[in-house]
Formats: sequence, C-alpha cells, structure tokens
Amino acid sequence: MGRAFARLLGSQRKVFPFRIVAIQTLRHGAAIDPRGLPLEPPFGKRIDSIDEFLDRARPEVVIELTTLNPATGEPAISHIRAAFARGCHAITANKGPIAHAYAALAEEARRSGVEFRFESIVMDGAPVFNLVRNNLPGCKIRGFTGVVNSTTNVVIEAMRAGRTLAEGVEEARRIGVTEADASFDIDGWDAAAKTAALANVLMDARLTPLDVDRRGIARLTPEKLHALKRQEKTVRLVSRARTTPNGVKLRVRAEVISEHDILASTHHTSSLLLFDTDLMGTIGTVELNPGVEQTAYGVFSDLVDIAKSS
Amino acid sequence: MGRAFARLLGSQRKVFPFRIVAIQTLRHGAAIDPRGLPLEPPFGKRIDSIDEFLDRARPEVVIELTTLNPATGEPAISHIRAAFARGCHAITANKGPIAHAYAALAEEARRSGVEFRFESIVMDGAPVFNLVRNNLPGCKIRGFTGVVNSTTNVVIEAMRAGRTLAEGVEEARRIGVTEADASFDIDGWDAAAKTAALANVLMDARLTPLDVDRRGIARLTPEKLHALKRQEKTVRLVSRARTTPNGVKLRVRAEVISEHDILASTHHTSSLLLFDTDLMGTIGTVELNPGVEQTAYGVFSDLVDIAKSS
Repeated sequence: MGRAFARLLGSQRKVFPFRIVAIQTLRHGAAIDPRGLPLEPPFGKRIDSIDEFLDRARPEVVIELTTLNPATGEPAISHIRAAFARGCHAITANKGPIAHAYAALAEEARRSGVEFRFESIVMDGAPVFNLVRNNLPGCKIRGFTGVVNSTTNVVIEAMRAGRTLAEGVEEARRIGVTEADASFDIDGWDAAAKTAALANVLMDARLTPLDVDRRGIARLTPEKLHALKRQEKTVRLVSRARTTPNGVKLRVRAEVISEHDILASTHHTSSLLLFDTDLMGTIGTVELNPGVEQTAYGVFSDLVDIAKSS
Repeated sequence: MGRAFARLLGSQRKVFPFRIVAIQTLRHGAAIDPRGLPLEPPFGKRIDSIDEFLDRARPEVVIELTTLNPATGEPAISHIRAAFARGCHAITANKGPIAHAYAALAEEARRSGVEFRFESIVMDGAPVFNLVRNNLPGCKIRGFTGVVNSTTNVVIEAMRAGRTLAEGVEEARRIGVTEADASFDIDGWDAAAKTAALANVLMDARLTPLDVDRRGIARLTPEKLHALKRQEKTVRLVSRARTTPNGVKLRVRAEVISEHDILASTHHTSSLLLFDTDLMGTIGTVELNPGVEQTAYGVFSDLVDIAKSS
C-alpha cells in the first residue's frame, strides 16, 4: 500500500506537489531527506523510537500505515500521538485507532490545532467520512447498514458455488484481501472494527469492536447456501448501527437476505454503505472491486484535504 | 418543492440562519421583504419581469425552481442569467440549464465572480456533483453508468408484476414522481437530460439531450418482462457515458440486465450512479426511495456550500 501511495504521489506531483521527506518500514528500515526522497530511496537502519524518527524527519503530515492490532489499536495510536505532540497533521489507513480511541485522538488533534484523517479505513478511497463532512450539512446520521468486508463476500460466493469455506478463504487470500489470520475476517472482527469506527466518527458513539454484537460466517456451509439459493436468498456479513434511547447499538451478523436486496449486490470485493439520515433519507456509497490503488487514493484524498484546509 | 425547501430552512435556522427575502410563484404571485419573509408570507401580484423582481428583492443568492422545458431549458436559463448579471449566486433544481447551456453559464458565473450550483437535478440531494467536486481530488471521470429515472423503475416493476404500462404510469403518478406528460419519462427524455447534464459538468462534454442515443421503455410489455423474469433478468432504463477518441458518447436505453446486477437494485423511486474514474476505480452513489424533502435538501446543501465559500 505504501508503494501504491508513493506511485500515486509521483503521478500527481504536477498538480499536487507533495514531498516525501521520510519513510520507515519494518522490512527496509528508514530513509530520511528533508529536501525530498526519490521514488526508490536508499534505506538505512530502522529507527526504533518514533520520537527520534519524527524529530529527524520534521514532516508537516504524518501518514500512519502500520498493520492492525485489533485488540489494542497499537502501535498506530502511539504513532499518531507522537505526530500530534509535534504539531503534525496525521492520516492513518489503520482502523484500530478510530475503532479504539477516536474521541480522545480527535480531542488531542483539536488541542494541537492539527487535522486527523482516516478516509481509507472503511471503504478504501470511496468517500465515507468525507462524504458526511463535506456534503451533508446539517444532516444527522441516525444509523447505517453496510457490507464492508471483502473476504466474507468472496468466501460466501465460493461456498454458494459449492466450494468449502477453506477453499473460499484460499481464494480471498489469492486476491490479496485477506490477512495472515483469516479468522479476523471470518469471525467478523474486521467488520466490527469498521462498524465501531464509523459509529464513533459519524454518531459520536464512543464504542470499541468489543461492544459490537458480533457473529461471523464460520457456521455457514455450502449446503446451507445452496438451500437458500433455491429460495432466491443469499447471505452477507452485514454491519448495522442504530440510535436507541440507550445509546448507539452496533451489530455485525451473517444475515440471510433476498438476492434482490441492494446489500446482495456486493459481489467479489465490492462494498456498500447506506446511511440513514434525518434530512436526506437513505443514501449510500458503493465501491466496485477496489484494489490497493484505491486504498492509496483514500490516503491521498485526505492529504489533499489537509493541504487545502491548512 | 418550494414549500419543502422553506420548511427545511425554517427547521435549520438556528445553525444556518438564512433569510428568504422574496418568493415568486406562478400561482401565488410575489412576496418581497428585504428584512426576511415569514413562513406563510402575504403574496401580492406576480411581477412579470425577472429583472424587476430581482431589482426589488436584492437577494445574495437566487434559487431557481421553475419546471423544465426540455427542448430549450427556458425560462430557467434567463432567470439564472438575470441573477449573474446582478452579481447574485444562483442555484437551480432544474436540469434544463445544465443539459442545454452548462459551459456558457459556468463561464458567465466565473466572469461575474459568483457560484452556480445544481446538486438536486440528477439524484435529488444525494451528493453527485458535490461528491466529485469535494471528495475526488485529482480524479478524472472517464464515464458513468446509472439508473436515474424513477418513473420507468416504477412502470417496469408494475409490468413485471403483470400490470400494463398505463397502469404503471398511473402508479408513478400517484407516488408523485411523474410529470403531466409521462412520455417525457417513458421515452427517456428525462434520463437523457440528466445524462447530458452529468456529462457536461463532470466530463466537459458540451452536449444536449438531443445528442443522447436514446431509446425508452415504450415497447416493453408485461409478457416480455415475464419471460425475462424466468431467466433471472429484468430491464432498467440505463444511462451511460464514455470517453472515446471522438469525444464523449452518451446513451440512454432500456437494457436487459441480470437481476443480480447492482443496477437492478434500484427498486421503486431509488436511483444509482456509478462513476468510472482513473484513480478511484468504480465508485457510486445510491439513494433509496427519496421524496420531495430530499430534493429540497439538495438545494439546501448547495446554499450552505455557497455560504461557506463566499
């Protein structure tokens, strides 16, 4: 994803002349040059302390692309705090910090007078958070319904075609949408993290993935899906949020739905999110078969937004 | 729609304190008070000249809500020009001006240093133009595919359930989505106007509804739809735009599609628009069963956008 983002910055540099001053990866180590790095920079030793890395790099915007620890949101949360502490804007493509600590981080960004963005964490670069922020003035999000996990789509469609769950997971892994530990997708943790993140930002929910009423697709079988097919039905891992007198309730479930339900139109790696609003009825965003370039675009659109507003 | 918009302004006035200084309608005549009108204003005689009306009203923003003359885009185009000539921003809920004269009007707005907005003309208040403007920096729209006419959805679903085209039109009229002359919807002119408007704004197409390769649903029969149903297929009036070496090509056709195609998920008055972009792949906006309040919201979101940017 980092490489896709660097390529995108390169292709857009005439109109959006951003400069990469430092990169650090687990595998390659660190490269720092305040005058701007080339597309294939020379990497040196990794810098273990995020504070030291940022102090030497002196960026205006920190882009956090570490992989997710679903239980804690770390190390991303610490990286983002280190950015805020130095007056840097922060962008993350990692849903952990938003699912675990959004209210605190948003408050810290406000106090530091910097921006905090994370468009790519739910539907890659398809506008979700920016849609609500930029295009729905005065609108309150009362709830949402969505299909936001690619792996389960691919696995369900494989099982519906007669293959096993394990074969479906293999296919999802081949496409590159599944992490090493597929149970994170299958058991609904990825969808729960996205659901909590959406609710925290759009509905001020202050919940974590652990607060989501969650049931994944592990008990589904090809036989069950075949029987549903004869009734023109299928299954999707559906995320739901709604406002109740007792606060925001979140749910992620393998739901039986009609083949003609718009939720069922999320084939392959496509995703769909419908917002229930007070003034604009039900509107939504859909994304068809995204790849890593689209996640990179989400980070890029955050970066452009920050550059425009600062 | 004007009444729905006035109600919306009233309900939002604490956060967005806009003032209505003048209203003119064919039926009620004119009401003008630069200090601001009440929700049920006293109407006097209609003012025949738009110039005189605007000179007396002295608004900052002109909101054009006349009904569409699909062949010319008038009188809306003249109203908008009268606004620009006085240094007023203009918002229209009328697709005619955008389908017939977008490039010229946009240029006139630029020269007058004013904003020109029209979010509600394609999908009511669901973000379409503002989505591309605000949320897709650097993205080029290479084409689009959509189902943007409610009447034909309602008629097709009625015929699929065994009723006649005329009965379907009656149902659409009862819901309130069909104009006096239903052939405007059935023959694809409404969809063609929306398609030309989208292409003019998003792809700099400089085309009119007459340039759209257009074929409506008039030849469809309940029998045909019933036969398609047995093959798990249905029909939608689909708008398509694509970039070719010879310029932008536009098409509106009754297309046979799979029941499982996302385009087929547009039931009742719902609509869907998918953008083919260079950087963000295929993303789209969907709107489920909107009413007149949602069209009013589209105008409201334009108004807030203008207030923020000026």
